Parts: sequence; C-alpha cells; structure tokens
Amino acid sequence: MNYRLSKITKIIGIDFNGEDATIEGIHTLSEANQSQLSFFNDSKYASQLPTTKAKAVLIDAKHASLLPPTTIALITDEPYLKLALASKLFAHKIEAGRETPLRGEGCDIDEGVVFGKNVVLGDNVTILGGCYIGDNVTIGSDTLLHANVTLYHHTKIAERCIIHSGAVIGSDGYGFAHTKMGEHVKIYQNGNVVIEDDVEIGANCAIDRAVFGSTVIRKGTKLDNLVQIAHNCDVGEHSLCAAQVGLAGSTVLERNVVMGGQSASAGHLKIGAFATIAGKAGVTKSLEGKKTYAGFPAIDHKLWLKMQAMLSKMIKQK
Amino acid sequence: MNYRLSKITKIIGIDFNGEDATIEGIHTLSEANQSQLSFFNDSKYASQLPTTKAKAVLIDAKHASLLPPTTIALITDEPYLKLALASKLFAHKIEAGRETPLRGEGCDIDEGVVFGKNVVLGDNVTILGGCYIGDNVTIGSDTLLHANVTLYHHTKIAERCIIHSGAVIGSDGYGFAHTKMGEHVKIYQNGNVVIEDDVEIGANCAIDRAVFGSTVIRKGTKLDNLVQIAHNCDVGEHSLCAAQVGLAGSTVLERNVVMGGQSASAGHLKIGAFATIAGKAGVTKSLEGKKTYAGFPAIDHKLWLKMQAMLSKMIKQK
Amino acid sequence: MNYRLSKITKIIGIDFNGEDATIEGIHTLSEANQSQLSFFNDSKYASQLPTTKAKAVLIDAKHASLLPPTTIALITDEPYLKLALASKLFAHKIEAGRETPLRGEGCDIDEGVVFGKNVVLGDNVTILGGCYIGDNVTIGSDTLLHANVTLYHHTKIAERCIIHSGAVIGSDGYGFAHTKMGEHVKIYQNGNVVIEDDVEIGANCAIDRAVFGSTVIRKGTKLDNLVQIAHNCDVGEHSLCAAQVGLAGSTVLERNVVMGGQSASAGHLKIGAFATIAGKAGVTKSLEGKKTYAGFPAIDHKLWLKMQAMLSKMIKQK
Repeated sequence: MNYRLSKITKIIGIDFNGEDATIEGIHTLSEANQSQLSFFNDSKYASQLPTTKAKAVLIDAKHASLLPPTTIALITDEPYLKLALASKLFAHKIEAGRETPLRGEGCDIDEGVVFGKNVVLGDNVTILGGCYIGDNVTIGSDTLLHANVTLYHHTKIAERCIIHSGAVIGSDGYGFAHTKMGEHVKIYQNGNVVIEDDVEIGANCAIDRAVFGSTVIRKGTKLDNLVQIAHNCDVGEHSLCAAQVGLAGSTVLERNVVMGGQSASAGHLKIGAFATIAGKAGVTKSLEGKKTYAGFPAIDHKLWLKMQAMLSKMIKQK
Repeated sequence: MNYRLSKITKIIGIDFNGEDATIEGIHTLSEANQSQLSFFNDSKYASQLPTTKAKAVLIDAKHASLLPPTTIALITDEPYLKLALASKLFAHKIEAGRETPLRGEGCDIDEGVVFGKNVVLGDNVTILGGCYIGDNVTIGSDTLLHANVTLYHHTKIAERCIIHSGAVIGSDGYGFAHTKMGEHVKIYQNGNVVIEDDVEIGANCAIDRAVFGSTVIRKGTKLDNLVQIAHNCDVGEHSLCAAQVGLAGSTVLERNVVMGGQSASAGHLKIGAFATIAGKAGVTKSLEGKKTYAGFPAIDHKLWLKMQAMLSKMIKQK
Repeated sequence: MNYRLSKITKIIGIDFNGEDATIEGIHTLSEANQSQLSFFNDSKYASQLPTTKAKAVLIDAKHASLLPPTTIALITDEPYLKLALASKLFAHKIEAGRETPLRGEGCDIDEGVVFGKNVVLGDNVTILGGCYIGDNVTIGSDTLLHANVTLYHHTKIAERCIIHSGAVIGSDGYGFAHTKMGEHVKIYQNGNVVIEDDVEIGANCAIDRAVFGSTVIRKGTKLDNLVQIAHNCDVGEHSLCAAQVGLAGSTVLERNVVMGGQSASAGHLKIGAFATIAGKAGVTKSLEGKKTYAGFPAIDHKLWLKMQAMLSKMIKQK
C-alpha cells in the first residue's frame, strides 16, 4: 500500500504543504527507509534524529530542527497518537477471501482447514483439521500443524517445525497510543512473525506479530504450552521456555536461554546466552549470560537462595 | 424456562407444601425479583434477608424468620448444594442446532464458521474461519472476529470490537457446591458476558459468563493475550490488562485501571480508577485509585521498592 | 509398532550384535516389560537396574553390569539422546485420515467436527463445532465437548465430563534430550491422557500426554481456565485447580487438593490429600496433606502470613 503524504496528513489531521512524497510504510527512526514514515516520541531516541533516513517524521516542533534536511518534519504535539492513526492506513485488510495454496509434494491437508490468499506450502507439510492459515503465509517442508492452529497473515514458518493445537501465531501486538481523555488508540501491527527451522510451539501459545519488522523465534527453540511472546521479541536459537512463560515486547533472548515455568521478562531488555531463569522469576533488567537467576526482581540464584534462608531463619526466631 | 416451586423442590429434595409459585430463574438475595429463587449461604449477607424480593429462598432453619412474609423459606441444611441442583434446571440446553444468522449489510463471513440459533449480526461484521457463535449471540457493527474464536450462547458484543484467535468468551464460571464427601457439584452459570464498544480481546483469552447477571468488559478496554476474566467481573472502561493477567470472580476494576503482565487479583474486591498494578503483583484487598501497586500481597509501589532495597542490603551484609 | 533390536540400534547408531529380540515400545526401568526398551540416565535410579524386566536398556558402560542377565545392555555415552532417537520410531503417525466414529445412542455432533480413525463415542455425547477428535480417542456417555476442543490421538475421556472451548488434551509433553552442541532432540511422547468420570476442564487448558503411560485426571476433578498440566501428572480425585495453575511434569496431587489461581508446582513431587495451595504459590518440594501453604517457595500459610507481617513492620520502621 502506498499513500501520498498529502493524503496521510489530511487523514491524520496534520498541516502539511511540503513536497508530496509517496509513503510505503512506517518504521522506527533507525530502520525507516527513504519511502517510509517514522515518528519521534521518546527523548531517549533523540540521537537517532540526525541520521534517520525516513522520508517524513511525526515530531514535536522543538525537536524538528534535529532532522536531516532530506527528511520532512510533520509537526504535532501528539506524534504517537498520529502514528496510531497513520498505522491503520497500512494495515493488511482482514477478509474472508479464499484461495487454494501453492503446495509442494506429499502434503497432507485435513478437512476443514481454511486458507487465505497466496499461501505457499513446502513439501510434506501436514495440517490437521480446524487450522486457519491467513493470507501470504509460508510454511516450510516437513512442518506439522496440529489441529486448530491459527496463523495470521504474513507469518513465515520454516522447515521441520511442530505447532501444537490452539497456538496462535501472528496476532496483533499489544500497542496503543493514548488520548488525553484516557482512551486507547490502536497502533496497527504491520510487521509479522518469523519462525525458523526445527522450532516446536506448545499448545495454546500466543506469539504476537511485530509492530514493524518481525517477531522472531530462532532455530531449534522449543516453547512449552501457554507461552506468551509479545511483539518484536527475538527468541534466540535453541532456547527453552517452559509453560506459561511470558515475554514482554522487544525482549531479546540470546541463544540457549532457559526460562522456567511461569517466569517472565519485562520488555526492551536482553537475556544473555546460556542464562537460566528459574520458574516464577521476573526479569526486570538485562542479564548476563551463563548464569542462573531466580526471584522477582530476578537476582543471582545463589543470592536468592540465601535470601530465602535468611527470611526463613528470621521467622523462626520470632 | 419456568418451573413450579413444587417441581423444583421435588427435584432438589426439599420438603415443601406452601404456595406453589412459578419460578423463572435464580439470583442473589439483593438482585432476585418476585419470580426468582434465591439462597442464603453466608452470614455476611444476613442483613439482606429482610429486604429480599425473591419469591423463595434456600435457607437454614435458624435464619428463615428473617425473611419478609412475602418470601417463601425453603429450609435446608445445605442451601448452596441445593442451589447447585436447582441451577441445572435453568441452564441453557447445549446442542448442535444450526440456523442462518440475521445479519446487517456488508458482513464478511468466512468458510467454516458455525452459528447456533437466533444469532444477530450488525453491519460490516467480519468473522474468520473456525469461529463458533453460540445460540442467541449478538455482535455489533464493524466488529472483527479473527479465526477460531468461540462465543458461548447469549454473549453480547458491541460495535468496533476486535477479538483475537483462540479467545473463548462465555465459558462457564468456576462455581461448585461441595458435598460432605468432598465432591463438587456444578453450579450452572446462567448469566452471560457483555462486551461493550471498542474493546479488544487478545489471543487465547478466557472470559467466563456470570453465574447470575453478566460479566462485563466496558468500552474501550484492551486485553492482551492469555488473560483470564472470571465470572461476574466488571472491568471498567479504558482499562488495560497485559498478558497472562488473571482476575478472580466478581473483581471490579474501575475505569482506566492498568494491570501489568502476570498480575492477578483475588475475587470480590475493587481496584480504583486509574490505579496501576505492576507486573506479577497479586492484589489481595480492595485498592484506592490513582496509585501504583506492586508485589504480592500488592502494596504501594514505592514501599515495595523500599522492601526490595532493604532485602538486597540485608543479604549483602551477611 | 514392532521393531527388531538390530534395526533400532542401526537407526540410532549403537553397536549391537546380540540376541535380536522384537521390541514393542519404550518404558522406564521399573515399568518396562519383557518386550520393551528402557534407558538409564540418572544415577538415582541405579537401584532399579538389577530388577528391571526390560528386554534391552540404553546404558553407559560403567553401569551395564548391574542389569539382570536377561536384559540386553545397549552401551552408549548418551543414553538419553539415544532414547530420543528411538522414541521417534514408536510415535503414532500424525495424518489427516478420516473415519466415521462408532457411536452410541443419542449423540449430538455438530457441523465441522473432524474425527480421526477408530474413534468410539458412548451414548448422548455432545460435540460442538470446530472440535478435533484424533485417532483412537474414546469418549464416555453424557460427556459434552464445547466448540473448538482438540483431543489428540489415544485420549480417553470417561462419562459425564465437560470440556470447555479451546482446551487441548493430549498435546506432546515437553521432553527433549540435549546434544553437546546445545540442540534439543525431541523425545516423542508415546503415552496418552486419561480423564475419568465427572471431570470439568476449563477454557484454553492444556493437558499434555505422557511420555510413557498416562497423564491422569481423576474423577470429579475440576480445572478452571488456562491451566497447564504437564506430562505424566496424576491429578487426584475431586481436586480443584483455579485459573492459570501450572503443574510441571510427573507432579502427583492426591485427592481433594486445592490449587489457587496462578499457583504452580515443580515436577516429580507429591502434594498430599486435602492440601490447599494459596494463589500464586510455588511448590518446590513434596507437601503433607490437610494443610494450607502459601508463597514461593511454598511454606505453611500461617508462617507466610507471619513473614509478610514481619516484612511490613520492618519497612515501616525504616
């Protein structure tokens, strides 16, 4: 989808009478290309303003002068709210159109599987009853979808994956701008989910699509049941997430991270390679790899054991 | 469904030879009307006995004299167990009967959607494959159901809502009476779920129907994935519940409450408007609005931070 | 499925030139019969070696001499990894073949229900739209499956059960062997799930099949929504698990255990009859029955209350 900037600004309510460029999408300041719109909402990204390649940026008047001369400033007091309004323009149209998928050899497709448009299956793909495969999905060879799996549009699943029943992949990330009246305005999630080779996804997991770019589950990772992966997470290869784990938005797990049952991580942080997070732990800041952590806030596991011993002793002395 | 009181009492095993009224349903002491049955099970509701409008009340002999003269006392040592038995009589019959829904203009209904009887859709409703729409459901205009959503009978969804895949709305609340032998007898959940305008429900959420009356999600509220809303909750307008939040039965959130990921609330309490509950917190009593809380049991967020700092210091001194 | 030992060892890469027995499956040292393969991976099971009835055991050279003379030692440095490779041979073939189920009288089967091969239904079974019933499933009389339930192959559900929408029963347990390179090799879960009479399973629950034998939910037990039951759990009769509870692998609940919302248990432990685990608690060791526990790690509930009071007091004194 392309829009003229004059049209976008009219729809989202911004004064504009500059060069009328064509806009093909939205991305962050650092990732936007010369035909994309971006936004500036948080002063911690101010250093990215002078080098952004975005064609136009939603920005407050005060910071506009920091943009490079090739970037158009779209001045607004509410750049995040305007972003939300603009995101809707680039959203994939959700509709019930159907097409027979393009498929490789030896596929085994059950009754009652619904395919959107432009689906591509590799060889020997098995899809059991009740699955829904959205528009523009690709599924690699030898992948198995158990019954009642949902793949939203543009999800990419590689080879030899196993997706268990009730898993939902590609649902909208949880992103909203907020009005002064306390209402929440949806930021359409125009990215997707990419699942690499040899991944297994447990029953009733939810993996949200990215707002921009991709949520990624890297090769060899195994998720247990009822795991929540928020938008823009990057789950490193050969990681393990036990049941009911929750990762908030943009969490990065490096390779071979182990998350115990019901553990969770706040967003926008990194857990280092070969780290182990104990069950029920809550990670609140980035953590070094090759160590074991426990508790909430998550600390070194030995320290946590010491704390439990201390508390236990204090109680007995009472 | 209507039953004569003589029939109900015979089925549930209570001696009765009074005025044979017609009973049209069951409700609490304070909400029951003159054609409903009620029950008295907990001495904290004794003050409601003299003013109940219920036609008949399941009650122990000791408290029966507190009922108004227009209300029939159905004397039993086990009023809650008798309630469970009676609730079954008023349960909607679950069956596979099918009808074409009444629909407005511009609806887009996918293959493989199953409709029960007496479903009413507004204009421009989109329903993707694998959804199940139970008897007597209504869905407002411009609402979108992604694939594999389940709406149980009598669910009401208003306009411009987005329901993500795998969400289950209207499943039975978790309510049981218990026999002296430790068995659990189902209290049929004869209420429903009401979802107001502009609500978004995440993937694989579960929202239980009310035992009596309605579980309500008010306008503009957004639930992330894998959220549990128990029976008879009232989630205030423009509230936000991050992933894996759990609200126990009859919890009230006032407007614009924010619940962090994996946080939870015990039942039968109220969280005030504009309160924020941090991730993983556990609310155990009613909380004032406009404040931030953390921990389990949830306390003022600053106090919680102080507690963490204190514990951290104590450990290092060891 | 049967395989000659010479074939199995060739496929999994073990030198073998002994008696070429026929192997019909895999089980633990204590449970394997004379036509099964077993494995020795953990020195705490060394005492079971002399009495195992297994036909052959994957075992390191050092312990092989402890096996009885009738058992063939299959020597390997990586018995668990070899087990994983062998488990694949005995896995049920997942495919889309369909058959009309054998059914009793009065069944009510909705549109869009997909049945695998060799399904047997009792009398008056109700199955709503979108359910998937895998191969060799049996469902007892008067059981109700709400819409969009998934039963994997060989699941056994007894009489008068209620299974709510989105529940997944029989998905693969979360079991992997690990290579020296940090890759995870699937241990095929060749057991099943058995659900006894009068069980109710909440919306979007996940109950994993056993690796060997059965995961069991005993009679009269009620699970709330979004509950996770891992492989080989044994949930005692008349137990209650509130929403978002998680039981790790091989947890045993004796009868009438109550687990509060979001509570969890580590694996391979036992919670005694009539024990109550408070909401959000985390059980880390076996617990005696008839008591109430809280916190993480879970301790006596009164002690936990005392600890909270102590911490609260310490903070106020600061």
